[in-house]
Amino acid sequence: MGVTSTSGWIDELRRLLPDPRRVSTSHAVLENHSHDFSYHAPRLPSAVVFPETTEEVSAILRFANEHGIPVVPFGAGSSLEGHVVPVKGGISLDLTRMNEIVEVRPDDFVVRVQAGVPRSRLNQRLARDGLFFPVDPGADATIGGMIATNASGTSAVRYGAMRHQVLGLEVVLADGTIIRTGSLAVKSSAGYNLTGLFVGSEGTLGVITEATLRVYPLPEYVVAARATFPSVDAAARVAVGLIRAGVPVARVELVDDATVQAVNSYKGTNYPERPTLFLEFSGPEAAVRADVDFARDLAATEDGLGFEFESDEKARERLWEARHHAALAIAAASPGKKMMITDVCVPISHLPEAIRHARRTAEEHGIQAAIFGHVGDGNYHAVFMVDPDDPEDVARAERVNAAIVQHALARGGTCTGEHGVGMGKKKYLNDEHGQALAVMRAIKKTLDPRNVLNPGKIF
Amino acid sequence: MGVTSTSGWIDELRRLLPDPRRVSTSHAVLENHSHDFSYHAPRLPSAVVFPETTEEVSAILRFANEHGIPVVPFGAGSSLEGHVVPVKGGISLDLTRMNEIVEVRPDDFVVRVQAGVPRSRLNQRLARDGLFFPVDPGADATIGGMIATNASGTSAVRYGAMRHQVLGLEVVLADGTIIRTGSLAVKSSAGYNLTGLFVGSEGTLGVITEATLRVYPLPEYVVAARATFPSVDAAARVAVGLIRAGVPVARVELVDDATVQAVNSYKGTNYPERPTLFLEFSGPEAAVRADVDFARDLAATEDGLGFEFESDEKARERLWEARHHAALAIAAASPGKKMMITDVCVPISHLPEAIRHARRTAEEHGIQAAIFGHVGDGNYHAVFMVDPDDPEDVARAERVNAAIVQHALARGGTCTGEHGVGMGKKKYLNDEHGQALAVMRAIKKTLDPRNVLNPGKIF
Repeated sequence: MGVTSTSGWIDELRRLLPDPRRVSTSHAVLENHSHDFSYHAPRLPSAVVFPETTEEVSAILRFANEHGIPVVPFGAGSSLEGHVVPVKGGISLDLTRMNEIVEVRPDDFVVRVQAGVPRSRLNQRLARDGLFFPVDPGADATIGGMIATNASGTSAVRYGAMRHQVLGLEVVLADGTIIRTGSLAVKSSAGYNLTGLFVGSEGTLGVITEATLRVYPLPEYVVAARATFPSVDAAARVAVGLIRAGVPVARVELVDDATVQAVNSYKGTNYPERPTLFLEFSGPEAAVRADVDFARDLAATEDGLGFEFESDEKARERLWEARHHAALAIAAASPGKKMMITDVCVPISHLPEAIRHARRTAEEHGIQAAIFGHVGDGNYHAVFMVDPDDPEDVARAERVNAAIVQHALARGGTCTGEHGVGMGKKKYLNDEHGQALAVMRAIKKTLDPRNVLNPGKIF
Repeated sequence: MGVTSTSGWIDELRRLLPDPRRVSTSHAVLENHSHDFSYHAPRLPSAVVFPETTEEVSAILRFANEHGIPVVPFGAGSSLEGHVVPVKGGISLDLTRMNEIVEVRPDDFVVRVQAGVPRSRLNQRLARDGLFFPVDPGADATIGGMIATNASGTSAVRYGAMRHQVLGLEVVLADGTIIRTGSLAVKSSAGYNLTGLFVGSEGTLGVITEATLRVYPLPEYVVAARATFPSVDAAARVAVGLIRAGVPVARVELVDDATVQAVNSYKGTNYPERPTLFLEFSGPEAAVRADVDFARDLAATEDGLGFEFESDEKARERLWEARHHAALAIAAASPGKKMMITDVCVPISHLPEAIRHARRTAEEHGIQAAIFGHVGDGNYHAVFMVDPDDPEDVARAERVNAAIVQHALARGGTCTGEHGVGMGKKKYLNDEHGQALAVMRAIKKTLDPRNVLNPGKIF
């Protein structure tokens, strides 16, 4: 480093901002920025910085780059692979004060937001114009964090992942240069797709400060449904059958029987302990009613054991309760432990086999897991609780995780469908990408030659 | 160059391939690879090479890179901005012998194809499995070419552009290294989105040899419709109204009144000379019928002057005839001239104003133009015929093109929605991208340090 000591550069950093209190070294603040929602080992940053403008982010990065100080962007801290852990120390760059909804353009189905806006707040604002932002990763993440990991979630089957929603970005590069990618147009072929390159780059190529997003009309009518089946395969066939018939299903989630059993134990409920599909249909009322009828008939052809549906908002939430509580049921059984969650995505036809393999592997290792999947995308999660302080416990869970990843890669899948690489998936990238990984490294080196942007992640 | 003369390296190149006749220097073959479908000035390559395997492409690139010989990938030659013109001479790399449909995976909604497969042949093959590939740029382009320009067309409003369909690629880099990006899974967050970076890179970062694409179930029922309106604005409001209502319209095209008039002169037809919407609806029959009813009612609220629809395939084609013949009508009026076609994309709400501005600008310059738009995307084209040998004619058309681009950029749009940069849009990239253009250049330099891959394009 070009400065003599940590306290030396922190003092310099304070002079870069109009209010020195926006550089914090209080233990509570450092601790809060030392970990994410997962089992990955925490580490304290040297300082947490709270910029309020893109120009401030630029000044901080220029300073950090000159002095070789690591910078780790931080939003809601809800990542699941240790993305926001400052493994090399340095600056945790907290973007939550950059939380302005800059411009809503309802007639263009476009919105511009700063990176620190939480998605719940964006949706509250959009509802005033009859619009919504569809990507729903579960947690109330910030838009910047969702872009950084290319988040998706339950609605990706209909709307796609973050990659499909981001039309343009404002990004601060390692040396402090501010660039704007993309435009307000919904498509473009004007040169390299830099927008798409920064989406999913996990803070390693630049700091995202603002985004232009596609938004969608709130549907006129929404129906939620729940259907139980004799097997995971039968449930998956119904999900794929809907897609094959051209039904624009809004969400289609599969929860396996052992997971329903865990929910029943946790909640005292008595849901049928069978593979269960959770569905959502949305659109003009007549079309939705036709879709629901079609789905019910299709479920019957697969010996469906029950098909319930609701259109009232509260009733819809109740109907989906077992899906929402799947991970919680596992967490509640292991107080004090931390969450490890697999995230492979396989070719759609391989999903039932992959889920059965994951269940079997977990059982063989004596691990209780919640298993649920975005069955329209081939993406599913096995959630287990681990004790980060018990190396044997972690190692056992890692073995299950590795077996699940290798099973997916052998079928042409990916080690992470939506959570990103962070620290947890680094070891699989060579197997997944081979020589292409060298191209990723070359791009990283070109854009961040001093390796100050979230070092230790992805590579 | 590391070799003494053109004929010297061509002889060396012949020895790299199993059959020396796959390196051609015949004038007819060179001429055929000297131009695309547009007005851009042709130039002959020194040789046209016809590889049949990825390994051959690798050997050719390694050789060309060592000797500093330009390589320009060539498919159907249907690009519209001079992309395939070998402006620096060298090798035209014709990929049309790499035309295998490698694997159809109907249960995964995925297909793997070599770059030289024309889209019509892909769709013929997919139909056997009840599937289709939706991207429809008009011309019967190769899949490789469509990826290289991030093509889209009339169906993008429903399915998105090429960028949304490509799950993975096999790419040969400048030094001959073969990489594979992406996977068979429909989504991934496993590192940088190299797939998305190569889509739209116009042969300047690597040669695409194979692609993994999403495919879709053939719709059960299709209806085409045609509706006329008192103004471009009224027609556009109906298009946007459909989107706002959540109607999954499959295509929605706008043709302005002067263009319908040109079609009537050319074809001897008597279509109402009014702004006209061409629509397509597809999906389960009940849903489509509901969508058509909704659209007809919506058109009536905008003083629609007529709304016709058909479900029979032949009748559907007849109904869309004026849209299909829009460009031809202009071409027929100017035999011997070449086509210049603008391609801006603006925020959706600006489309009517942009179309009126384009019509006015063309008229002010005494230019007859066909103007039609992908009104759901904000992307439209003005087609004019120019005489490439008349500098004044070209300059006048260029002025109209430039005015249209500047109008779009001032509204947050892009200079090219789907045709790409090639030679024709280079001059606008600095205005559109500013500092981000330097990042594109840095990536180009990292992946193609000797600038052998399609030099003179994009930058």
